[in-house]
Amino acid sequence: MDRPRIAVTMGDPGGVGPEICLDLLQHEQVGRECLPIVFGDVNVLEQCAAVVGKPVPRSIIQHAGIAEAESPSVLDLGLMNPGELTPGVVNPATGAATYRYLTEAIDACLRGEVDAIATAPANKEALRGAGIPYPGHTEILAERTGADRACMMLTSDVLTCSFVTAHVGYSEVPGLLTTERIHEVIDLTRNAMKRLRDREPRLIVCGLNPHAGEHGLFGNGEEERIIAPAIEQARRQGCEIQGPLPPDTVFLEERRASSDAFICMYHDQGHIPLKALAFDRAINCTLGLPIVRTSVDHGTALDIAWQGKANPRSLIEAVILAARLSRGPQ
Amino acid sequence: MDRPRIAVTMGDPGGVGPEICLDLLQHEQVGRECLPIVFGDVNVLEQCAAVVGKPVPRSIIQHAGIAEAESPSVLDLGLMNPGELTPGVVNPATGAATYRYLTEAIDACLRGEVDAIATAPANKEALRGAGIPYPGHTEILAERTGADRACMMLTSDVLTCSFVTAHVGYSEVPGLLTTERIHEVIDLTRNAMKRLRDREPRLIVCGLNPHAGEHGLFGNGEEERIIAPAIEQARRQGCEIQGPLPPDTVFLEERRASSDAFICMYHDQGHIPLKALAFDRAINCTLGLPIVRTSVDHGTALDIAWQGKANPRSLIEAVILAARLSRGPQ
Repeated sequence: MDRPRIAVTMGDPGGVGPEICLDLLQHEQVGRECLPIVFGDVNVLEQCAAVVGKPVPRSIIQHAGIAEAESPSVLDLGLMNPGELTPGVVNPATGAATYRYLTEAIDACLRGEVDAIATAPANKEALRGAGIPYPGHTEILAERTGADRACMMLTSDVLTCSFVTAHVGYSEVPGLLTTERIHEVIDLTRNAMKRLRDREPRLIVCGLNPHAGEHGLFGNGEEERIIAPAIEQARRQGCEIQGPLPPDTVFLEERRASSDAFICMYHDQGHIPLKALAFDRAINCTLGLPIVRTSVDHGTALDIAWQGKANPRSLIEAVILAARLSRGPQ
Repeated sequence: MDRPRIAVTMGDPGGVGPEICLDLLQHEQVGRECLPIVFGDVNVLEQCAAVVGKPVPRSIIQHAGIAEAESPSVLDLGLMNPGELTPGVVNPATGAATYRYLTEAIDACLRGEVDAIATAPANKEALRGAGIPYPGHTEILAERTGADRACMMLTSDVLTCSFVTAHVGYSEVPGLLTTERIHEVIDLTRNAMKRLRDREPRLIVCGLNPHAGEHGLFGNGEEERIIAPAIEQARRQGCEIQGPLPPDTVFLEERRASSDAFICMYHDQGHIPLKALAFDRAINCTLGLPIVRTSVDHGTALDIAWQGKANPRSLIEAVILAARLSRGPQ
């Protein structure tokens, strides 16, 4: 078998995860590029298929069947009781199930049974209700795989950004910026983009302050003291890299066209242009793990869950990206 | 005379200011909507016209002639000696001239001789070289007009943002956010947009933290403690206003279409989407002054100055916006 096996977690059963997984199982391009295995609950998928009028999954397997699967399949973990679920509503039971889909997928990937993981959305509130002590997927993945360095990267057809800091408060960002961490994110991004582009990528690093500090006019010299040395270090290692550049003019079309990825200092520095330019087309990957992991870039969308309105595009792209990233060396 | 008289400062003589002023003087729509009076140096404009091959200005006036001017004119301040200027190079002499064009325009506006000011770009380095103790236009305007509250607003056909903080370092922003200041910027924005839209505008206020803090998950509760009370206060005063909303999803097309302006907490929060979506079409206005002032949203662009390549569009839009803003009550 040439096609990589991608574990696709079903996400929170009460959200849009089940219906986009149903679409994924039918998707032709996905089936050509890889073999998706949805880690979830068959009874939830069947119930959802009936409600939204989509085809039910045909190939249902257990763990032992992963290696033999020859078509898009569902690995039935049998976690949800039919009575426990109200479409569009998350609860501790759906949170606990979401967590198990993920940990089963991580373990299968660490054992080499699957080549990569793509995740449908979890719900932070449901995870908390189930007593899961992690704010989200990324932290669960980092801990369970024992990763010592990791970062989030969002990629789309128009823009790719990776993040030195992400889900922390605005005020905490300056204290978290170190030359070592910035170099680490540059390095992780360079490796990932090499695999995606099959050549040395061209990277751009954003400054922290307005106009990248304008030679000390604004800020505490973070650009000169902290960011520039990380760029120098990467350049000495052969990286094609520019920066630190003014964050507001860095995302103009011309620069986007002449570069492969942007290293951002904080969440909104990269998320604002990504959502403005490529909403619902961005895919989230966690770089630096011993396994390949991608994710949709949307939430459980409870207001439209189980109504057949959810767009499966981000999950489809996430699965295809996972397949491509899994082909190169980690 | 129906048409408002707009003082247009020529900007730094060594930058792109002179050539875009030459274009402005010839522009038909500008001439229909207002009477632009370029505050600058005729000898510089004539020299520039010869270099880039544009028509020389025809109507040259002195102060006493402002009230009688009937066509786009140049108020010749006679500050630059021909030998002092090298195109594409700024120096203390060009910085000093830039400053005088502006102060003369401010004073003319305060005396009621002109109805509004639109400014071509200054060069911070040249101002500093000339010993002018202000980082830029906005600070000169605020002090010379005695404004006790002011804010920057950038407006374009796709997006309008006003700023609670602007040219300060990233780290300084949280300490500058107060409920009073945020309410002030909401109020200034509401007044300006009322004049531009001729109706109650719909405003959106951004949060500070990723996901607007996600109910206390990130940050120090700035959204609940500081931003929300300012929004409540404005709402009680009849303002149509929403927020604090997650900064990354706030600029999506749907939200842009259903609102008139966004209140941003810091420079790059609004500048990143503005430049990504409307580069070289945004106009900068200073709200809260006793006079109307707009500005181009680009710099002196020394690398292309005096080559006939500069796009006059931002200056043209700035002058037209100044004319429209000057029609309503301050």
